[in-house]
Amino acid sequence: MKTKSKIISADKKGWSNVEEKIYKTEGSNFKDIKRFSLLDDSIPDLNFHTRYFEIEPGGYSSLEMHRHPHSVIVLKGSGSVILDDQTSTISMHDVIYIAPNTVHQFHADSNDKLGFLCIVDRYRDKPVIPSDDEIRSKIRSENVLKKIRK
Amino acid sequence: MKTKSKIISADKKGWSNVEEKIYKTEGSNFKDIKRFSLLDDSIPDLNFHTRYFEIEPGGYSSLEMHRHPHSVIVLKGSGSVILDDQTSTISMHDVIYIAPNTVHQFHADSNDKLGFLCIVDRYRDKPVIPSDDEIRSKIRSENVLKKIRK
Repeated sequence: MKTKSKIISADKKGWSNVEEKIYKTEGSNFKDIKRFSLLDDSIPDLNFHTRYFEIEPGGYSSLEMHRHPHSVIVLKGSGSVILDDQTSTISMHDVIYIAPNTVHQFHADSNDKLGFLCIVDRYRDKPVIPSDDEIRSKIRSENVLKKIRK
Repeated sequence: MKTKSKIISADKKGWSNVEEKIYKTEGSNFKDIKRFSLLDDSIPDLNFHTRYFEIEPGGYSSLEMHRHPHSVIVLKGSGSVILDDQTSTISMHDVIYIAPNTVHQFHADSNDKLGFLCIVDRYRDKPVIPSDDEIRSKIRSENVLKKIRK
């Protein structure tokens, strides 16, 4: 079954006919984050999925790692991202490449929401929560260690 | 050679260290369109490429078709898109799924620039310019036929 070309219009709340999906990485800690699946499994011809995440001020995504890479583009607001041993502020239209097996976490820690697109392979491994040993082997920065929420 | 995680910061002109690339579909007609390759071939782990296109007011992309699908998200301004027999206005954060073999063309025809992300498979077929016969078989709308630039 082929899916025809289509337009998903943006509105003030998000996108027409796109429901919020449950954000969940098993066994992880996250706060005030919403997930919207814009172009996904429902389109058989797509080898990659386009999702949008929005984190409320003070919220954060799961601390996680996986083999598949992420292509991320900030659409709204600002915040920061942990990529292994580094934390960087990010804002509108910044592009983040998350390489395989990078420990990463997004934070809306600039008194602002943080909204971003995240493109991933259709067929991908499940995120895993890094163990304390893995965290210690990858992250030496005290600054980052203090910042992570797990 | 693995590419590490990285951030490509947005600035007023575009993105730091991202050069404008030549926009070109062989034998096609296009006007006032710029192409920026944000995440591409230079990252071996990526199965999809993230590009950004920006069309100046009055400009348009090539009228083209191909087997690979497009995932498009409008980042700036507004305009319209032709998808086979239909033309639709598009603006900020609208998402456009362009199915395989859809004749398509973007126009910055709202006295505004039109900037959009376009995600594609890493390995993909080359765009082709539809012949007059193909155009006539897919497009019946006089409105669209008048609008296309080829």
